[in-house]
Amino acid sequence: MIKVMMHGCNGAMGQVISEIIEESESAVMAAGVDFKDDGHNPYPVFKNLEDCNVDVDVIIDFSSSKATDRLLSYVAEKQIPLVLCTTGLSEEQLKKVEETSKKTAILRSANMSLGVNILLKLVNTAAKVLADADFDIDIVEKHHKLKVDAPSGTALALADAVNEALHNEYEYVYDRSQRRIKRPKKEIGISAVRGGTIVGQHDVIFAGQDEVIEFHHTAYSKAIFGKGAVSAAIYLAGKPAGMYDMSDVIG
Amino acid sequence: MIKVMMHGCNGAMGQVISEIIEESESAVMAAGVDFKDDGHNPYPVFKNLEDCNVDVDVIIDFSSSKATDRLLSYVAEKQIPLVLCTTGLSEEQLKKVEETSKKTAILRSANMSLGVNILLKLVNTAAKVLADADFDIDIVEKHHKLKVDAPSGTALALADAVNEALHNEYEYVYDRSQRRIKRPKKEIGISAVRGGTIVGQHDVIFAGQDEVIEFHHTAYSKAIFGKGAVSAAIYLAGKPAGMYDMSDVIG
Amino acid sequence: MIKVMMHGCNGAMGQVISEIIEESESAVMAAGVDFKDDGHNPYPVFKNLEDCNVDVDVIIDFSSSKATDRLLSYVAEKQIPLVLCTTGLSEEQLKKVEETSKKTAILRSANMSLGVNILLKLVNTAAKVLADADFDIDIVEKHHKLKVDAPSGTALALADAVNEALHNEYEYVYDRSQRRIKRPKKEIGISAVRGGTIVGQHDVIFAGQDEVIEFHHTAYSKAIFGKGAVSAAIYLAGKPAGMYDMSDVIG
Amino acid sequence: MIKVMMHGCNGAMGQVISEIIEESESAVMAAGVDFKDDGHNPYPVFKNLEDCNVDVDVIIDFSSSKATDRLLSYVAEKQIPLVLCTTGLSEEQLKKVEETSKKTAILRSANMSLGVNILLKLVNTAAKVLADADFDIDIVEKHHKLKVDAPSGTALALADAVNEALHNEYEYVYDRSQRRIKRPKKEIGISAVRGGTIVGQHDVIFAGQDEVIEFHHTAYSKAIFGKGAVSAAIYLAGKPAGMYDMSDVIG
Repeated sequence: MIKVMMHGCNGAMGQVISEIIEESESAVMAAGVDFKDDGHNPYPVFKNLEDCNVDVDVIIDFSSSKATDRLLSYVAEKQIPLVLCTTGLSEEQLKKVEETSKKTAILRSANMSLGVNILLKLVNTAAKVLADADFDIDIVEKHHKLKVDAPSGTALALADAVNEALHNEYEYVYDRSQRRIKRPKKEIGISAVRGGTIVGQHDVIFAGQDEVIEFHHTAYSKAIFGKGAVSAAIYLAGKPAGMYDMSDVIG
Repeated sequence: MIKVMMHGCNGAMGQVISEIIEESESAVMAAGVDFKDDGHNPYPVFKNLEDCNVDVDVIIDFSSSKATDRLLSYVAEKQIPLVLCTTGLSEEQLKKVEETSKKTAILRSANMSLGVNILLKLVNTAAKVLADADFDIDIVEKHHKLKVDAPSGTALALADAVNEALHNEYEYVYDRSQRRIKRPKKEIGISAVRGGTIVGQHDVIFAGQDEVIEFHHTAYSKAIFGKGAVSAAIYLAGKPAGMYDMSDVIG
Repeated sequence: MIKVMMHGCNGAMGQVISEIIEESESAVMAAGVDFKDDGHNPYPVFKNLEDCNVDVDVIIDFSSSKATDRLLSYVAEKQIPLVLCTTGLSEEQLKKVEETSKKTAILRSANMSLGVNILLKLVNTAAKVLADADFDIDIVEKHHKLKVDAPSGTALALADAVNEALHNEYEYVYDRSQRRIKRPKKEIGISAVRGGTIVGQHDVIFAGQDEVIEFHHTAYSKAIFGKGAVSAAIYLAGKPAGMYDMSDVIG
Repeated sequence: MIKVMMHGCNGAMGQVISEIIEESESAVMAAGVDFKDDGHNPYPVFKNLEDCNVDVDVIIDFSSSKATDRLLSYVAEKQIPLVLCTTGLSEEQLKKVEETSKKTAILRSANMSLGVNILLKLVNTAAKVLADADFDIDIVEKHHKLKVDAPSGTALALADAVNEALHNEYEYVYDRSQRRIKRPKKEIGISAVRGGTIVGQHDVIFAGQDEVIEFHHTAYSKAIFGKGAVSAAIYLAGKPAGMYDMSDVIG
């Protein structure tokens, strides 16, 4: 059983992850860290990372970038593998992540969902053979009405996964209404639908002569990011120092 | 049995329509008109409209706007109902269509497919109740790589059918990548996918709180426009003078 | 502001509905009834229905069929409109519901989701015109792996809504693997997909000559049933005695 | 330029393939063989295979199983690679195919479409990792109303491709309406929708915890089988003796 510390255990994702681990047969919650705690968790919670006197195999972090520097110092010193899910890190912090990975294993990914990462791999594999067979590639993503950026980071990651297989020769197009031309071969159209509370749907469309192949990923809740983080933690425990990402986890 | 004259019988759509009528139990091909003919049709073909000595109940026109003036004069004089499918008419010609409809029945529509016209009606009905229930509305259309305009005329017709039910208060948005705002309620996003040989797919998406309702129309061939024209002809035969469109046909 | 009593306020759906009402601009939580309560709700909660001394305009019930008889007697006496969402009522109880509706307004539906009820209405409208145009009709529903019955009650309700428009002449077919025949016109195939945690998706497919029209409903959470119940309550308050269902609510 | 002989050149698929080759930059129509011919093809057509005096690099066969024995003898003697698309071969004929492949290259596949064969490969790759991550697998296929068998051969091939990756431990289920149990993990549900003129759609659905990954293949015409046959011919020309299938072509 992998012993996990949840860093930021009382945040929304921290609670989701705790519950997933409690139902897991491969991992167990050994400790939580959060600056505020009302004692409702069934595992010991420490207000300061440094106060933790429980032995852990891996740390999952879903907290704030304000806490990242201290956390990196801690895992470097203790040589504990770290699944780093906090976003919004500064350039300087990203550099420190890189340095820290020389001393302990660190895993970081744009999207923690297992399904999205499997899809990234599959479209990368499919892109070359389908582009050679003259299929055109477009992406449609759908998200809730509160999402302010478009297209989604995951849609761009999917486009990048496709493009990497095609020597990065394809351009991304977000609006076709302003031109009147036949579709150029080397482009990937990316469309964004917004509405309601849609958690996230991504379609990668390969359209060929008289046939279309589509890959769809539909998220039903943010729990998928938690589940991916737990899989990552189980994978990362015991691994040598270095940078890892979700593509390592899904093998 | 409705006796049909096919005006432009040797064009691609003329041939498609002839075949549909030959298999129909409600209509029969009485005559064709085309300036060139190799005698392969099983019905009499006349090079000049005026030479036609066969009695017909209705004319379907899928030819060229160059022939429209002469055709309009002909149906006005003979008082034969006309299904006018030729596109690209000038303002002057449209005016003449209107005048001619005072003397005989004329049917004209943006899209002749029965399915699309049924969908136009359904989304118009659905829009009011769904918008009241706080559903957001987006449209995605997919067409082949040779289509130079985007979005499609049918996607715009669908948006108009929705908007009409909402007091025409909604704006159309073709690109969300250039702004960073929450989705405004009173907009309809319209996205265009292009690739391969996709004949035409239109999705109207109503996204609400924790539920999404979608309407999809998929075309498999251009024969659907022919089939719609034949239904229109059967409907129009015997009708009094006036302007009609496909919404009349689908009742 | 409509004053609502939530009967069964501490159950999962009772809590969902309380939250929806707290955010509503048309309704307010006036009272809750539940046999157990820890005092966390911001409105007064009574262990016994009869103890409630707060004036309410309408009652929403999401509790147990064991409590239904007492509830029906209560609303009959007080003449308070009732949105009855509890399922599994006995024949005898259904009869008592009917009787009670002579004294006060009662609303009851197979599925409380606004979206599904709008869809029921739309497919009923579409079925006649599409069947006349020779479209075939099939339904595919998808639910989570724990759902033991197949097809879903909602899929059957959709089939019934279609069939009602077609003089109830169509038969339902659940398995085509055991026969080798061309598809008969007057049948509705109903397929059930099961897997993962899919909340519920229903597709009604109208397949014609070279074109397909599809209606999709996707549920993202059970909150949609709560939202429908609140809309029903707002609708029902002040209505005369009688039986109502969700089709009245969506107008 | 690969020189192709089309065996059965005046059949529907023979004509489709001729046209694809005429537009190809890698292959050219060198000869056709058909027992009846009206001289409309732009390449020489022979009534008897043995009369053909034109040098060819590869033969595509889309004819009748009655002609297969003679064809196999011919390619064995001349050592010409053969893309064998004719179906309905007897056990004895299949044995002769095997024997002939010792003398020349023969390619044969359940489905000649490039897209379907790419999909077969992708679902095989995806199945292991997704099943390990506790995704359930179902397949939905849609075809026209005249198709008498269900599920389609391609749906079964997709199920087999999935199952092969899972040690063939999964059972296929065609009807869930006759039982009331939670979905067993080791099953693949296969549903068949029939209606209109749908050419063929196949969805492979992987449903996990709060996320769903789907693979869709949509065929718009039978030309995709012709296109696959031409790609197979270009691939096969010059290859050593042996049995090949479409998975070799897509690399």
